[in-house]
Amino acid sequence: MNYLQQSFSVKFEYRVFFTDMLFDVSNPVLNDFLVSSQVEGEMRKIMFVVDANVALHHPGLLDQVKLYFLEYQAVTVIDDVLIIPGGEIAKNEPSYYTRIVDAVNDYGIDRHSYIAAIGGGSILDLVGFAAAVSHRGIKHIRIPTTVLSQNDSGVGVKNSVNYKNKKNFLGSFAPPVAVFNDYHFLTTLNDRDWRSGISEAIKVALIKDRVFFEWIEQHATALVKRDKLAMQYLIRRCAEMHMNHISSGDPFESGSSRPLDFGHWSAHKLEQLTNFEVTHGEAVAMGIALDSLYSCLSGRLAEADYERIVILLQTLGFAIFHPMMQVEAANSPIVTGLQEFQEHLGGQLTIMLLKDLGVGEEVHEIDKNLLIQAANKLRNR
Amino acid sequence: MNYLQQSFSVKFEYRVFFTDMLFDVSNPVLNDFLVSSQVEGEMRKIMFVVDANVALHHPGLLDQVKLYFLEYQAVTVIDDVLIIPGGEIAKNEPSYYTRIVDAVNDYGIDRHSYIAAIGGGSILDLVGFAAAVSHRGIKHIRIPTTVLSQNDSGVGVKNSVNYKNKKNFLGSFAPPVAVFNDYHFLTTLNDRDWRSGISEAIKVALIKDRVFFEWIEQHATALVKRDKLAMQYLIRRCAEMHMNHISSGDPFESGSSRPLDFGHWSAHKLEQLTNFEVTHGEAVAMGIALDSLYSCLSGRLAEADYERIVILLQTLGFAIFHPMMQVEAANSPIVTGLQEFQEHLGGQLTIMLLKDLGVGEEVHEIDKNLLIQAANKLRNR
Repeated sequence: MNYLQQSFSVKFEYRVFFTDMLFDVSNPVLNDFLVSSQVEGEMRKIMFVVDANVALHHPGLLDQVKLYFLEYQAVTVIDDVLIIPGGEIAKNEPSYYTRIVDAVNDYGIDRHSYIAAIGGGSILDLVGFAAAVSHRGIKHIRIPTTVLSQNDSGVGVKNSVNYKNKKNFLGSFAPPVAVFNDYHFLTTLNDRDWRSGISEAIKVALIKDRVFFEWIEQHATALVKRDKLAMQYLIRRCAEMHMNHISSGDPFESGSSRPLDFGHWSAHKLEQLTNFEVTHGEAVAMGIALDSLYSCLSGRLAEADYERIVILLQTLGFAIFHPMMQVEAANSPIVTGLQEFQEHLGGQLTIMLLKDLGVGEEVHEIDKNLLIQAANKLRNR
Repeated sequence: MNYLQQSFSVKFEYRVFFTDMLFDVSNPVLNDFLVSSQVEGEMRKIMFVVDANVALHHPGLLDQVKLYFLEYQAVTVIDDVLIIPGGEIAKNEPSYYTRIVDAVNDYGIDRHSYIAAIGGGSILDLVGFAAAVSHRGIKHIRIPTTVLSQNDSGVGVKNSVNYKNKKNFLGSFAPPVAVFNDYHFLTTLNDRDWRSGISEAIKVALIKDRVFFEWIEQHATALVKRDKLAMQYLIRRCAEMHMNHISSGDPFESGSSRPLDFGHWSAHKLEQLTNFEVTHGEAVAMGIALDSLYSCLSGRLAEADYERIVILLQTLGFAIFHPMMQVEAANSPIVTGLQEFQEHLGGQLTIMLLKDLGVGEEVHEIDKNLLIQAANKLRNR
């Protein structure tokens, strides 16, 4: 056959920093990063996009950012900070994407300049996507402000927006150049958002690390009481496990498997069915409960282990069932989530279940009758 | 410092096939590729997007595609073939992008399915971009139908659309899964489009391979007479040099340098200034003439070599100057192209010039007075 073979590898590297009060002028972490990335003869710009919720709860933030860059001048900061509503609306409403792309144009942000996003997962997803496609990729800095984004979505390589009510329909794989996890932002979260992100840590522990699962069990009360050291450890270990998973596996997900999506097929659908009134973390907690019980009913997981999982979720304050998760027939709304999950990933249906605490097992078929049983049992619990 | 280090590499591989009459049922090349990529338990879909110009000049094409997939059933072909106007309008008009993304949604094209684009560079750029961002990346097959796309843009890793009149403002680096260069499509090109793509071969020869430059000189008359073997060799060698450049260098262009863009800073601007009435290939020919003369006037290139370049361009039928290229002052429209070129790439201004036939040299400054001289000399030639 008459052909030319192309083959090359692209290396991606970035650091996830753990800090407190990132924009305090006595904290050099961000500036040190910017200085270390300087290139002679080049003055880079940095443009900030800030989650409106974060701006609201940290009224001094914008001034602090300005002061920071008066003190440290490794880059030229763009005066106009874009404030965008946080939460799913940021990803649903195309005008926010357009606003960022227009700002890239208006302020002449080039491919060597930075766009920094400060906010929850939705803002990071939106800004990451706009940055990834502008000039085929502007350097993107993530400053996640929620437990969920600091331990999971914010430290990974994906970004996206929704389209026609389909979650993450448009997006890309585009690693950030750096992530700064600032603990201070977590102090203003309400209890619901503080708790929300913990379910992703339980998830990754359940499929990969029994020791971490048992650590969470032992620290559940401390976490509920908003203990700083407990939360810092939980975030760091969870972020580390997500990062290791990415680098050791299939970073840009060319296969059908997505083991980290344990408990997620129903969670994605539930978020959508409730118009995102149930948060991602809350939906994942219910998804974990459902798939753990299914793992148990299908003979994979011991009942005592399933009990430990549900008790941990409940101790942390998570609901384990939502009326919209009711499964009554093969065409129940939540079950269509299975198909949508497969369609988004492509290829064979691949669902992660549990064999043991800390040990996952991928399956390619779900028994609808068992699923109905599992959902009913959870509802009646 | 308190951080986690992330580091991984992603491997990209694809083949560029050279064939004739790709959709003739006696030609197994496309089917062989699809079969070799099959995964058990999975039936992939393929959706075609076709350049309206190509559909016009190959009225049997759509039926032929249908017949092909009646004969070969490695994938399920989507009946609805999208026909989109070729040329820059495909990249300028956002509704074409939306049409493709909507079709992905409507026909349930998942990440393991294919979107195949048949057309010139603009259609390939548009479809490649829509495929790259849908579900974070659907497998993209390119079937380039012009000399330019077969020897240059179609075999590379970039895609894009224009935004607010800025060429390639939105796009990504996303390698195709395969490229099929079908010579048959070139037979219906008019002389202008046949010639247009040859300038990219001259460009790559000038900066990298004197032997290839001299081969083009020797075959200039054959190329003008539309000799099949000469064109096939030119395309293959040019494609090969572009592919080697990508794999041996900086595939996703993280640096400021873009050596293959010799002659391109003014070409991009000229296309835009003429509202794309001057084709990319024609603009590159003029850009080559301008930068070769500048290389000569700035003492880098021998005058005899500059003469050979201009004579080759003219023998092939290229114009070497356009009134819009006139440079009279530092703020002449064409000169603003220098700045836009820098802004799109980011970082330091980096322009490729010539030291010899087959030897490029990157510079970071352009002497505006010499540039004015060069433009005036070209105009009066």
